[in-house]
Amino acid sequence: MTGDRRRAVVLLSGGLDSATVLAVARDAGFACHALSFDYGQRHQAELEAARRIAQALGAQEHRILPLSLDQFGGSALTDPELAVPEAPTEGIPITYVPARNTVFLALAAAWAEVLGAQDIFIGVNAVDYSGYPDCRPEFITAFQRALDLGTRAGVEGRGFEIHTPLIRLSKAEIVRLGTRLGVDYALTVSCYAADAAGRACGRCDACRLRAKGFAEAGLPDPTRYRGT
Amino acid sequence: MTGDRRRAVVLLSGGLDSATVLAVARDAGFACHALSFDYGQRHQAELEAARRIAQALGAQEHRILPLSLDQFGGSALTDPELAVPEAPTEGIPITYVPARNTVFLALAAAWAEVLGAQDIFIGVNAVDYSGYPDCRPEFITAFQRALDLGTRAGVEGRGFEIHTPLIRLSKAEIVRLGTRLGVDYALTVSCYAADAAGRACGRCDACRLRAKGFAEAGLPDPTRYRGT
Repeated sequence: MTGDRRRAVVLLSGGLDSATVLAVARDAGFACHALSFDYGQRHQAELEAARRIAQALGAQEHRILPLSLDQFGGSALTDPELAVPEAPTEGIPITYVPARNTVFLALAAAWAEVLGAQDIFIGVNAVDYSGYPDCRPEFITAFQRALDLGTRAGVEGRGFEIHTPLIRLSKAEIVRLGTRLGVDYALTVSCYAADAAGRACGRCDACRLRAKGFAEAGLPDPTRYRGT
Repeated sequence: MTGDRRRAVVLLSGGLDSATVLAVARDAGFACHALSFDYGQRHQAELEAARRIAQALGAQEHRILPLSLDQFGGSALTDPELAVPEAPTEGIPITYVPARNTVFLALAAAWAEVLGAQDIFIGVNAVDYSGYPDCRPEFITAFQRALDLGTRAGVEGRGFEIHTPLIRLSKAEIVRLGTRLGVDYALTVSCYAADAAGRACGRCDACRLRAKGFAEAGLPDPTRYRGT
């Protein structure tokens, strides 16, 4: 069975969006190779969540690649000296990790080449997003063009398709889509400041967007918050 | 003094080309932040060479980022089960590391953003090259476009310049250029199958191109070969 299905690399953070993307890729019939990064993020509970989600959604395999982005610093998500904001900020927020999706997509492409996969899934979103430039459709298009020119698969005419099934959806639409596809959002961790058990702060940007999504979708919010 | 110079991130493998690039960047007046990767390559002597070169050419700092590309395999440079060819091969060779320059440039951009640097130097070469698609000018142009769209620096109008000073040079021209700029090529290791002491095999693709470069430039070849 598995041998007949097309393979896809699915970037899986352990949050709400990427869990939904994994469900979409599976629903489209792909054998899903989930890829997570241990990049020195504060919210290590994310990686535990990624493991649970990969298993629950029947990923073919799940790899967690160590990646020392914290060596570079420059983001509240990787630098313990920078605080995660608890209120909205103007412009690109301090939680932006420099060139993160560029790095993640590059590594997804490296694995995809080895797997003979032409499809990469990423949960970027340009609607209810946090102001990150690497979540915009024009970036994805440009990156796909670079891959087509800079990889064996591209040169040999197979190329890549970067799938961004959430890019035009609101958080409420994402939550509805995932719920329909059987995602158990209780397994996911979105909070930038989650504790070791994966309980959310309820105040950071990611928590605010997530809670708003469930509220607007009219669905119960299964998030486990600290102190509740 | 240093504070007045523009910063650049220079990708430094420890080979002949990247040593020349570091000398070019220094000569152009940049404060050079050299970046190497420990990506599971067979030729670990490269990294020792990178350390020596960074010091000899006055890099501002030098970081070696661990990166488990060997987890993916698929290349004779990272998979001990695949042999390094000792004769030229057709098409893209087995020493091609999937999406390597895409990954390296992405990480260089991540560091550059944190440093506030707009300049990235890479020693790709489209003349005497090994048939790697990620060494071609059209790839570099496409990748720079992706960075301009996907990074804070790009969105805020500063953007990046990916410098490829060797891209149109023959190996002989590269050797002449570096010699003029004071590169000590005895410090560099190009061989894909170098031993722990950095001595070259004299037979792989990288050795052949390098030896041809010195011969055509009419310069003595300082490479240390095994059994000599």
